[in-house]
Amino acid sequence: MILNDGEKIEDLQLKGLKIIQNKKWFCFGMDSVLLSDFADLKKKSTVVDLGTGTGIIPLLLWGKKEPEKIYGIEIQDEVAEMAGRSVSMNNLEDRIEILNIDMKDVENHIKSNSIDAVVTNPPYVESNGGIVNPEDKKALSRHEISCSLEDVIRTSSRLLKHHGRFYMVHRPYRMADIIELMRKYKLEPKRMRLVYPRQGTNPNMILIKGVKGGNPEMKIDPPLYVYRDKESYTDEIYEIYGMERKDGR
Amino acid sequence: MILNDGEKIEDLQLKGLKIIQNKKWFCFGMDSVLLSDFADLKKKSTVVDLGTGTGIIPLLLWGKKEPEKIYGIEIQDEVAEMAGRSVSMNNLEDRIEILNIDMKDVENHIKSNSIDAVVTNPPYVESNGGIVNPEDKKALSRHEISCSLEDVIRTSSRLLKHHGRFYMVHRPYRMADIIELMRKYKLEPKRMRLVYPRQGTNPNMILIKGVKGGNPEMKIDPPLYVYRDKESYTDEIYEIYGMERKDGR
Repeated sequence: MILNDGEKIEDLQLKGLKIIQNKKWFCFGMDSVLLSDFADLKKKSTVVDLGTGTGIIPLLLWGKKEPEKIYGIEIQDEVAEMAGRSVSMNNLEDRIEILNIDMKDVENHIKSNSIDAVVTNPPYVESNGGIVNPEDKKALSRHEISCSLEDVIRTSSRLLKHHGRFYMVHRPYRMADIIELMRKYKLEPKRMRLVYPRQGTNPNMILIKGVKGGNPEMKIDPPLYVYRDKESYTDEIYEIYGMERKDGR
Repeated sequence: MILNDGEKIEDLQLKGLKIIQNKKWFCFGMDSVLLSDFADLKKKSTVVDLGTGTGIIPLLLWGKKEPEKIYGIEIQDEVAEMAGRSVSMNNLEDRIEILNIDMKDVENHIKSNSIDAVVTNPPYVESNGGIVNPEDKKALSRHEISCSLEDVIRTSSRLLKHHGRFYMVHRPYRMADIIELMRKYKLEPKRMRLVYPRQGTNPNMILIKGVKGGNPEMKIDPPLYVYRDKESYTDEIYEIYGMERKDGR
């Protein structure tokens, strides 16, 4: 396995899976891990990950839920190429396909109304019209430059079958936009979980599930706390990461 | 003070305030208490309570925040009459006015775009088209018979000034409806708090604040837990109720 300049291999501690990351670019974070756990896929699902980046979500989803097939959509050439090498390194070419395309063109590659589930960890920051260097891969991964929240939700809805499932992680301050847009594109919000750094803080992530053409009725999960104290994560986070607790309990 | 059949007087443990309730009708609950606490009114506000019932929210708001004037809107004749007697009993006739009207006619009584804040604890249960006895006051208070969620939000928006504040308590399963309708009527969702019976449960109340014509950006508060254990409320609930802790801490 030949690595490019700035790349490293990280062990995902899950069924021997590994991923290539580039320190200069956007590296995956807890949001992708929590989203992969939150997505209660049905068996034999065909899944699309919109804005797959390093390919972390397809790899974790395959490790946790073994869906039939996962398409990872990534607009940035070099990032998509690196994600493809991660797939090959894990010998998952028959399970995970990285498509180096703009999600707005996805219907030229994947049939509309054909997908069981869409997962997405899209750029969080609204584009403010400022000039961003198009070579700045971190900016493209973080800012709504190549796609807006509405593009993500519209595309998801088009890809999904009737009663197909949509899973997204985003920032809580966008909650009203998220819910309004999901309704607009018939992805009925069905389940939501808020992630709080610790007890007594405001949440910093929202996990939301929608069902295309679903009936209106939302279920809100108990809060997910990340840290128990300064030293350790909560039991739930250790479980999600499949890690041993540091305190040996 | 002469009470009618089935009535009792309850001490609100707040500045000597008392309220008349009728055991046969809908009695106020924790939702009204939490909403009154959640409403961060500006000083000298003129406030409308849509669907005031016993008048509990105007009394608590006056006790906690001393706004300039509160109008309590109540469609049910006998319930409004009882609320009026509670206001008189507390000598608050110059502060609280109970209007026995349908909220859909409120603009014939209160000028549009004139109110600083609307608070509302509306009926939670959607009308399913079944027949309900119009004399059933509990049903009218609980079900969307005389007014739908959309009526409540539309009326609130019409009453409020530009940048006026809207505060509602409702059930979490309606969250998508609530946010979509608030957006539709330009009451931008700005702040939300979820109320959980205890740690690890799903929430059973949502407290939400909107600002008419506000900019999009929501803030989610930390969870509010009601019970600490089987014996006692959490410290925050004791504080909101202004009660001594049972365990004497």
